Amino acid sequence: MISKQEAAAAVRSAKAELGITWAQLAEAVGRPVAWTTSALLGQQPMSEAEADAAATLLDLDSEVSAALRSQPARGALDAAVPTDPTIYRFYEVVQVYGPTLKELIHEEFGDGIMSAINFRFDVQRVPDPAGDRVVVTLDGKFLPYQW
Amino acid sequence: MISKQEAAAAVRSAKAELGITWAQLAEAVGRPVAWTTSALLGQQPMSEAEADAAATLLDLDSEVSAALRSQPARGALDAAVPTDPTIYRFYEVVQVYGPTLKELIHEEFGDGIMSAINFRFDVQRVPDPAGDRVVVTLDGKFLPYQW
Amino acid sequence: MISKQEAAAAVRSAKAELGITWAQLAEAVGRPVAWTTSALLGQQPMSEAEADAAATLLDLDSEVSAALRSQPARGALDAAVPTDPTIYRFYEVVQVYGPTLKELIHEEFGDGIMSAINFRFDVQRVPDPAGDRVVVTLDGKFLPYQW
Amino acid sequence: MISKQEAAAAVRSAKAELGITWAQLAEAVGRPVAWTTSALLGQQPMSEAEADAAATLLDLDSEVSAALRSQPARGALDAAVPTDPTIYRFYEVVQVYGPTLKELIHEEFGDGIMSAINFRFDVQRVPDPAGDRVVVTLDGKFLPYQW
Amino acid sequence: MISKQEAAAAVRSAKAELGITWAQLAEAVGRPVAWTTSALLGQQPMSEAEADAAATLLDLDSEVSAALRSQPARGALDAAVPTDPTIYRFYEVVQVYGPTLKELIHEEFGDGIMSAINFRFDVQRVPDPAGDRVVVTLDGKFLPYQW
Amino acid sequence: MISKQEAAAAVRSAKAELGITWAQLAEAVGRPVAWTTSALLGQQPMSEAEADAAATLLDLDSEVSAALRSQPARGALDAAVPTDPTIYRFYEVVQVYGPTLKELIHEEFGDGIMSAINFRFDVQRVPDPAGDRVVVTLDGKFLPYQW
Amino acid sequence: MISKQEAAAAVRSAKAELGITWAQLAEAVGRPVAWTTSALLGQQPMSEAEADAAATLLDLDSEVSAALRSQPARGALDAAVPTDPTIYRFYEVVQVYGPTLKELIHEEFGDGIMSAINFRFDVQRVPDPAGDRVVVTLDGKFLPYQW
Amino acid sequence: MISKQEAAAAVRSAKAELGITWAQLAEAVGRPVAWTTSALLGQQPMSEAEADAAATLLDLDSEVSAALRSQPARGALDAAVPTDPTIYRFYEVVQVYGPTLKELIHEEFGDGIMSAINFRFDVQRVPDPAGDRVVVTLDGKFLPYQW
Amino acid sequence: MISKQEAAAAVRSAKAELGITWAQLAEAVGRPVAWTTSALLGQQPMSEAEADAAATLLDLDSEVSAALRSQPARGALDAAVPTDPTIYRFYEVVQVYGPTLKELIHEEFGDGIMSAINFRFDVQRVPDPAGDRVVVTLDGKFLPYQW
Amino acid sequence: MISKQEAAAAVRSAKAELGITWAQLAEAVGRPVAWTTSALLGQQPMSEAEADAAATLLDLDSEVSAALRSQPARGALDAAVPTDPTIYRFYEVVQVYGPTLKELIHEEFGDGIMSAINFRFDVQRVPDPAGDRVVVTLDGKFLPYQW
Repeated sequence: MISKQEAAAAVRSAKAELGITWAQLAEAVGRPVAWTTSALLGQQPMSEAEADAAATLLDLDSEVSAALRSQPARGALDAAVPTDPTIYRFYEVVQVYGPTLKELIHEEFGDGIMSAINFRFDVQRVPDPAGDRVVVTLDGKFLPYQW
Repeated sequence: MISKQEAAAAVRSAKAELGITWAQLAEAVGRPVAWTTSALLGQQPMSEAEADAAATLLDLDSEVSAALRSQPARGALDAAVPTDPTIYRFYEVVQVYGPTLKELIHEEFGDGIMSAINFRFDVQRVPDPAGDRVVVTLDGKFLPYQW
Repeated sequence: MISKQEAAAAVRSAKAELGITWAQLAEAVGRPVAWTTSALLGQQPMSEAEADAAATLLDLDSEVSAALRSQPARGALDAAVPTDPTIYRFYEVVQVYGPTLKELIHEEFGDGIMSAINFRFDVQRVPDPAGDRVVVTLDGKFLPYQW
Repeated sequence: MISKQEAAAAVRSAKAELGITWAQLAEAVGRPVAWTTSALLGQQPMSEAEADAAATLLDLDSEVSAALRSQPARGALDAAVPTDPTIYRFYEVVQVYGPTLKELIHEEFGDGIMSAINFRFDVQRVPDPAGDRVVVTLDGKFLPYQW
Repeated sequence: MISKQEAAAAVRSAKAELGITWAQLAEAVGRPVAWTTSALLGQQPMSEAEADAAATLLDLDSEVSAALRSQPARGALDAAVPTDPTIYRFYEVVQVYGPTLKELIHEEFGDGIMSAINFRFDVQRVPDPAGDRVVVTLDGKFLPYQW
Repeated sequence: MISKQEAAAAVRSAKAELGITWAQLAEAVGRPVAWTTSALLGQQPMSEAEADAAATLLDLDSEVSAALRSQPARGALDAAVPTDPTIYRFYEVVQVYGPTLKELIHEEFGDGIMSAINFRFDVQRVPDPAGDRVVVTLDGKFLPYQW
Repeated sequence: MISKQEAAAAVRSAKAELGITWAQLAEAVGRPVAWTTSALLGQQPMSEAEADAAATLLDLDSEVSAALRSQPARGALDAAVPTDPTIYRFYEVVQVYGPTLKELIHEEFGDGIMSAINFRFDVQRVPDPAGDRVVVTLDGKFLPYQW
Repeated sequence: MISKQEAAAAVRSAKAELGITWAQLAEAVGRPVAWTTSALLGQQPMSEAEADAAATLLDLDSEVSAALRSQPARGALDAAVPTDPTIYRFYEVVQVYGPTLKELIHEEFGDGIMSAINFRFDVQRVPDPAGDRVVVTLDGKFLPYQW
Repeated sequence: MISKQEAAAAVRSAKAELGITWAQLAEAVGRPVAWTTSALLGQQPMSEAEADAAATLLDLDSEVSAALRSQPARGALDAAVPTDPTIYRFYEVVQVYGPTLKELIHEEFGDGIMSAINFRFDVQRVPDPAGDRVVVTLDGKFLPYQW
Repeated sequence: MISKQEAAAAVRSAKAELGITWAQLAEAVGRPVAWTTSALLGQQPMSEAEADAAATLLDLDSEVSAALRSQPARGALDAAVPTDPTIYRFYEVVQVYGPTLKELIHEEFGDGIMSAINFRFDVQRVPDPAGDRVVVTLDGKFLPYQW
């Protein structure tokens, strides 16, 4: 069986060659686009139907499909601090605004966290005359510290 | 002049003793609550009026106010990987979903980034029968790679 | 207001001088001993009644009590890899058995995690003729990956 | 001879293809499931009988069996701080509760450690109306500091 | 599809064998030399025409061209601190003069950054009787902190 | 004698209180503004006349002046990778364009470096209808590898 | 109560001023010299009698004695890799000969470790015409891996 | 020529398959067992006779023998802090007792080090009714600081 | 084209097999032995004549020669702190005597550096009845800080 | 007793105020200038006479003298990789030429090291029409690997 990283590379190649979008893949798979993308990049286990739908659309063989179904060892950065600027900006948000996020969560909800497991997110384009905006909505269940 | 970190500690102490909320501070300062909180934690420079409004409400002296107005050296984490669980979950989102965010931004906007400078965010509580949800909206201007 | 770290140091000193145990502190506070110990070491926020009960038993002033009630920035290790041998052995368990724990959780529960937030633990002494045993029970809610 | 890491990859692949569980492997091997899993992931040396039983059930050749019997260089994390969320939560327990574990061991046993060598652990599912719980029991011999 | 790193290695090899300069490649590609060089080293996505022009001049096949067109994961250093002396000197400038750059930007523009996205740079040779000088002009749009 | 870091803090405080600019300080000192700023931030040794001119303008005592004249241990970042966004963008330029800078220097000059010792830089504001630009000119003597 | 590190500093100072040796301290304390030294450097908890004997000989007050009795957070290096050459040589032995030590222990004892808890060591001077030798004897109980 | 690491892997494989011990290899080579083991693991250069004796006993070809004779780049740990528990315990000894070793060497010999170059060590099994003991004797020439 | 690292490995292999010394290679190349060695280890670009002379003496093909001529990405250590004892001792000199070297350079020359670019070094054996000495002469042009 | 670091700071301050050179201090102390400088910077233990001579010349009190006589914990860099450019260049020499130094030592002396303990060094100014040169002579006893 090939690894999920090798499967992700195969997905990227086929997607580029065939000119297929993540949105089209998500539609074929029947899941939200953010989830589908993260699954095809190796961060989620797919069901057999989901993996086969993606593999079929991308014209990839069953070995890729098997890898897409396997349980991931999650974590997609090569280093503790990401070097790619598009990803780094999100790290910068955590660096600069992390304690602010913590304060606001505690003020509204009390002691606890936003779950990153019971969690979904979405990326939207919001038109703006001063330049369109990337709006990322992180949406996780509040989990109170509970002994 | 005291440092912005010392000013932030004084703000936290006074806020806890007086039972004042970040929302009340934001109202006094006249800025959004997320911005106000990050400024009072030492990550933004305040105007004189803003700093004085906060210092007055918290009954803090002019030394704190001066520190709140000074230009910050931004970056609020003690280590490259945050240890506090409430903050770590946001780092985990970057670790697990960073490349997914990158792909979706590129698909929608082309090569570029979500600015973390021309940027605002907001934390909302969304009621949910299965447990209320923390919804964080990150909203930054798209900046295309442009030579 | 003193910091939670300074409060923890004051707690340790007073506890040693007065010969009080964590179990006695837990009884005075009215919470489990593991929770009470972690709170007095600065990793949990106490209620006013809890903090006052501990401060009274340890003959510490209200400044310590205020610090014990404040919201912690959690994380108690000085380095990413702990150097103290008693703590290191738990890190070693994660180093050697981390992927095994992951496999067994996935086999029994499916894709997800043991929560470290909705979580409690306990340390027991189990007599054994070959040498008594330390039995640590980690007990966290299962959280399935859920989009 | 292939490495233990290559053998572990072969085990995972075959296990996924054949739909065999760790529990079934443990039964075939005749050892507890946690031990068996860690051995098949390359963290324990197996006896010839144990390795052959696993290899037979998984339909793997003698090269894998030889690797499973060899002495491991233990340590299963790619980085000092694990990135996979299921494993990270155990690291978080050490980060947040490490000094508490140390205090409770010292209070009950005196100066010493829980052995991670004379050690076993177990993962159980405990039904709970508020959501089933992962209960991990770490059970190690107490070793007093002894000069 | 080969990776952008493999494509960059192929570019370097062909360039050395054929004795072609970065300036000639830039002319063929029709973009500034600094941009072209960074693109051929794998840090920018090229258009089909640009990639084909470069591949033709270097006598490389379409697989290289495809890789040159793909979206890069940017970041070109092997370690956080570069070891090559020619590159290290730029890191040294950031180490020694980083806070000075920050002060001067803030004094002239107010709180904000020089964009590294809406950004271009150029390397010039400036004759000097005491030894010719390397003059690097970094030119990025000012982005004010804007909530 | 106070340290250069303490002197730099005193300079920043006095400068903020008195509303003096780096440009005014440079004029008083009689050196370029970038050099003056880096010297007052502790990265250059000043002459007695330079240090006294700065101290006088800022109304600081002779202890500060002595510190400004002492030989610095250079290096102004708290971590290998800077966390402040204004400074990070320069690190990002090195991360993304370091090998490109190296190639262009080698193509133009042959094997060698841009000196960071026989070196000056300047920050300019260049008006632009699409948003003013920060233009940083790094200007260092070329040093060929010479055995 | 002062910290064990402060107590260790006080011990070193008094020892140097009074010209007392570790051997004399060990005799007063009634324990082996290696144990006594490590305890006075803050790596072992002393009994009341031991701490008082050391404090009396060194003419130190009861605060030091209290610190010497407290439970240590062990770990005496400032960095993961020690910089002092006398200590580094022992790290070098682990770097160069670590796997050899592992092989020889496994060959003689089977899978397991030399305990660093049930452990003692000794430093001897062995005369040698080619230069006297430092002989360090590490003596730890063998602990077999035992599930 | 294969690398010393590849030769070491070949040695381990052949040794395991043929059931040969390090002691038997040392006898064949005619050197102490600790030296022989470290040499076969790639940390010492062997003479031609020594390498051939080992290769013959292990039935390995001349390429392995050539690698065993080559000069090593010493250092056998994958990370600064070893993860394997058997090796980690020696690191722990340095962490906890490093400064003690330094003090005892200085007290007995004056300022200097135990050489790790003019150095030998030995591993012995010492029977003990409370559990046999691993006794490691480190034996290095004292080198005084000498200008 | 093979990499400079692969070329260096080929050089080492051929050199060992043919019993050729660095001094002989330097003579064939017509450059000092230290420069020649560093070039053949991949840290300098050779001229065509130099690379061919070395390749001919070592009986290596033109691919190696091409790699030896290419521009190196310099930096030869696998880690920030070298693990090989022969190389570590030079790092130790920098660790222990770095600030002393800095003071002595500043006292003699004023503020500036010893160039590592306009630089040569040499290794000599100096006979000494107490044991021959390694004498390394580092010889770099002084570069004054010059704005 | 003050620490050696505090003593070094006092030495630097007094030296700057009184305008005394390292060479004058070395003459007063009666030792080579490099040794004297490193000792006054806290990296060597001085004899009572040496420490008193330095303290008298610098008009410092007996507390400084006591600190200068105490045994140092050696290691003078704040980080594994030095940031000060004057010191960094020596690190760069190790980075770029470390393996070359190793090869040349092995070719001339066989397997072994240049001692950094039985070691002295010297900094000389060598006039050169193309710019004076810093010549650093490192001179250490060769220590062969000897079991």
